[in-house]
Amino acid sequence: MKEHKIHSGWKNTIHEIIYEADTPLGKLFDMLLIFLIVLSVVLVMLESVKEVDMHYHKTLLTLEWVVTIFFSLEYIARLISIKKPWKYVFSFYGIIDFVSTIPLYLSYILAGSQVLLAVRAFRLLRIFRILKLVKFMGEASQLKAALRASRAKIAVFIYVVLILSVIMGTIMYLIESDEAGFTSIPRSIYWTIVTLTTVGYGDIAPQTNVGQFLATVIMILGYGIIAVPTGIVTVEFSKHQKGKKENLAVHTNTQACPSCTAEGHRDDATNCYKCGDLL
Amino acid sequence: MKEHKIHSGWKNTIHEIIYEADTPLGKLFDMLLIFLIVLSVVLVMLESVKEVDMHYHKTLLTLEWVVTIFFSLEYIARLISIKKPWKYVFSFYGIIDFVSTIPLYLSYILAGSQVLLAVRAFRLLRIFRILKLVKFMGEASQLKAALRASRAKIAVFIYVVLILSVIMGTIMYLIESDEAGFTSIPRSIYWTIVTLTTVGYGDIAPQTNVGQFLATVIMILGYGIIAVPTGIVTVEFSKHQKGKKENLAVHTNTQACPSCTAEGHRDDATNCYKCGDLL
Amino acid sequence: MKEHKIHSGWKNTIHEIIYEADTPLGKLFDMLLIFLIVLSVVLVMLESVKEVDMHYHKTLLTLEWVVTIFFSLEYIARLISIKKPWKYVFSFYGIIDFVSTIPLYLSYILAGSQVLLAVRAFRLLRIFRILKLVKFMGEASQLKAALRASRAKIAVFIYVVLILSVIMGTIMYLIESDEAGFTSIPRSIYWTIVTLTTVGYGDIAPQTNVGQFLATVIMILGYGIIAVPTGIVTVEFSKHQKGKKENLAVHTNTQACPSCTAEGHRDDATNCYKCGDLL
Amino acid sequence: MKEHKIHSGWKNTIHEIIYEADTPLGKLFDMLLIFLIVLSVVLVMLESVKEVDMHYHKTLLTLEWVVTIFFSLEYIARLISIKKPWKYVFSFYGIIDFVSTIPLYLSYILAGSQVLLAVRAFRLLRIFRILKLVKFMGEASQLKAALRASRAKIAVFIYVVLILSVIMGTIMYLIESDEAGFTSIPRSIYWTIVTLTTVGYGDIAPQTNVGQFLATVIMILGYGIIAVPTGIVTVEFSKHQKGKKENLAVHTNTQACPSCTAEGHRDDATNCYKCGDLL
Repeated sequence: MKEHKIHSGWKNTIHEIIYEADTPLGKLFDMLLIFLIVLSVVLVMLESVKEVDMHYHKTLLTLEWVVTIFFSLEYIARLISIKKPWKYVFSFYGIIDFVSTIPLYLSYILAGSQVLLAVRAFRLLRIFRILKLVKFMGEASQLKAALRASRAKIAVFIYVVLILSVIMGTIMYLIESDEAGFTSIPRSIYWTIVTLTTVGYGDIAPQTNVGQFLATVIMILGYGIIAVPTGIVTVEFSKHQKGKKENLAVHTNTQACPSCTAEGHRDDATNCYKCGDLL
Repeated sequence: MKEHKIHSGWKNTIHEIIYEADTPLGKLFDMLLIFLIVLSVVLVMLESVKEVDMHYHKTLLTLEWVVTIFFSLEYIARLISIKKPWKYVFSFYGIIDFVSTIPLYLSYILAGSQVLLAVRAFRLLRIFRILKLVKFMGEASQLKAALRASRAKIAVFIYVVLILSVIMGTIMYLIESDEAGFTSIPRSIYWTIVTLTTVGYGDIAPQTNVGQFLATVIMILGYGIIAVPTGIVTVEFSKHQKGKKENLAVHTNTQACPSCTAEGHRDDATNCYKCGDLL
Repeated sequence: MKEHKIHSGWKNTIHEIIYEADTPLGKLFDMLLIFLIVLSVVLVMLESVKEVDMHYHKTLLTLEWVVTIFFSLEYIARLISIKKPWKYVFSFYGIIDFVSTIPLYLSYILAGSQVLLAVRAFRLLRIFRILKLVKFMGEASQLKAALRASRAKIAVFIYVVLILSVIMGTIMYLIESDEAGFTSIPRSIYWTIVTLTTVGYGDIAPQTNVGQFLATVIMILGYGIIAVPTGIVTVEFSKHQKGKKENLAVHTNTQACPSCTAEGHRDDATNCYKCGDLL
Repeated sequence: MKEHKIHSGWKNTIHEIIYEADTPLGKLFDMLLIFLIVLSVVLVMLESVKEVDMHYHKTLLTLEWVVTIFFSLEYIARLISIKKPWKYVFSFYGIIDFVSTIPLYLSYILAGSQVLLAVRAFRLLRIFRILKLVKFMGEASQLKAALRASRAKIAVFIYVVLILSVIMGTIMYLIESDEAGFTSIPRSIYWTIVTLTTVGYGDIAPQTNVGQFLATVIMILGYGIIAVPTGIVTVEFSKHQKGKKENLAVHTNTQACPSCTAEGHRDDATNCYKCGDLL
């Protein structure tokens, strides 16, 4: 108990602001964070548009620095305000937060570090939690549960589809010529998947009669195959719908344990349900 | 009661003709209205076809004036025959009716006001009500109810799909060159959505091996993802089907309250269920 | 009774051969008919392939005459072996049989009568009945029942999709230029439907940023919209599956009434369930 | 009993290693087999890529020989360690194993024997069994059962879709010109299926107004039609889900009968459930 009391100083305040959304300051911080996350993603997009980057390069760079500094401070604050920092560092959001912060620093050392920018979009997932989208979180967890339950079936399904694509792709490569775009088996497999999933770019398309006939077979197959994942997921959803009524208590509390960052505590909880520390 | 008696003069007659479809005159009006709504949409289409506009410009303009004048008179009649005109003016159909009427007038003042013409198509929704498509209205409201119930789930789903598109689009931008069409991140995201939804135009298509491999992943993902909204909607439909038997009384009355334009009254209703005014 | 006895001469024999499939001669006739129907469809296809038509024009024409003469004789036989020929003439199959027979005769009188050749493919539907595909007929009627039950909902759905397409098409026409292929509103609507249904040819594709953004919206919409008919049909199927167990007696009898061509008689029936005539 | 005892010599050991996965040696063999199967498929792909084949032709050929020799030895071992070799030779996997082994030998005798390489991908299906993917096998068999149950309905469905495609293709051929790509009826039918399945390459696309209108009809039809197989499969899945709880005993035993190669024995089985031989 003593340790917890000592801890309840400024670190505790920071923890409340950053990890929770129940105080006015916490709400303000969350709004600012959402704004900067969206800004950071928009900046990455705008920098890639040549005309925009040419005219507003300086402005974009400045804003990029603003975002980076804020993200850096936020990351440090998250680290010091939590009791077990390593748990955060190696958590899903911890890694994303870190990778979202460093690209600008890295760009001075390493070329090609822009790849990391793509990770920033993952931070958008935080918005679910920040906006107290409790209702949506319930829906999301339902979706996740249904998808997890149908994981094995969908894995089998995708594996069989891939084997089929390899076979079909190899046959199409042997039938069709280079001119039609079937220059190698991997490319033919690429075409087969493009066709089977009914995407159909048209950059590669069969020219011979036999090839077109086989393509027709692949299409109708793909048309029928799409029914399988849909059937699987629908049945899972329907099962979860029936089960839902029983566990009515959706976790709507936004508190996070200062020790282990666990979420979803009961409103009347005083101790973390995971590590037992005081909340 | 007095007020209502006074009201039952010519205004009441107009109200009956325009808002209801139970009298012969009301039916005639409705038929004329449907014809002119369809004509107004066809006119907009034909004007955009260069060859047609060149040869029949005058005829089209004349017909456009006929439609506009009829719509104007109808709009005024709707306004004066109702007790609380503002309720109509700011209702969904009120706004559509107004916007469908004004483009021709505006074209003399403002260039580019043709955008408003697109709104006219919304008037086609009136046909449901006009044609006394009661059975269809029941079906439509069932569809609406099922879609409304799955709204939150579909919102979560689309949000996650969009985040995924941003991430995938950014990665594809970094992998693929300008020549393949991936000139900026927004355009790459556009391509990702084109692929994920299995539309697949082919105006932008990956050329490198890595890009084609990643495209394959996106396609199979998109193929699996499509199962989710289908699963959600199917489960909702099936729930609504079961619930349907209990509320057998579908609202088939075409009367509209002269005060507040509320619809769906019981056949034996004498007062509006919303504002309490006499029907 | 007398009339029936007189009738049971050669006409009756023809009726048994043509309309039924229980005697050896009836089976032989059916096999020949299937072969000639398939041949007639293949002939139409081959005639359209320039290289084939050039080299084998005479052979194709001869075979076409064989098919036409057989179809003519069959049509006449069907007419004279039935008691109420007009019922057959104006029935679904009667019209198809007639239209499948005449194109060659007409080609000497009328140019452009080839359109009628397309109708021949409908004769392929006969194969269901001929092959005694009773099990399949049961399945087909189940499919039909489920689709009929969801007819109203799907009509509402398609109507709303069409209105949406008109609106979206008009907006895209105003945004995009002629160069991108959006030369008129009808063509823009065509593009919208191509996109909404996730077909995506790519002959017309948005070039501007705003246009591409709007296209994205249409795609995601289309992606979600596809869930609706699937949901409707699935629920209907599931209802029909439950109801199926109750009416176990599937009609597997291939006899057809000589008077009114009604099918689906009980195996122990002596009189037609429709017109009461002796079978 | 005697015969079985004599048999339990080296043949039995080979049988245990090859056909089962319960001993350490059996596991090692399985791992090696999976590795070589994947390698054999990758080799076929790489050989087709011109640049790779040019630079590493020798390496690829050497590896191809390694794979072929291992497959040959494995095939012989399978033959001699089983009591009724002919059952294996003409079984599904027996044929695939044979065809996967011979292409390299054949290439010295016969040109164009590469077609057989496509069959190798089928060997990937073995991975299900080898990896003791019992859970997945259960899922796969569930999928198979559901698909088998809906076979008849899907056959009817595809047959009707094909007839529709023939009719639509013929009409489109008559409407559209050669320039648009509709050069013959078979090619028009190819286009119709490309459109109906929402693949939409865009290599052939209607140019006339009537053609585009008809294309629109086909698309919306295809959009609605896709609901049918999905509905069928979903209902079957849901039925199989309900039935599943009753037969809880999933066959997880990896033993294969040395006489007839039958699988899925009970864990406490001493005799084959199919041929009665000792396991």
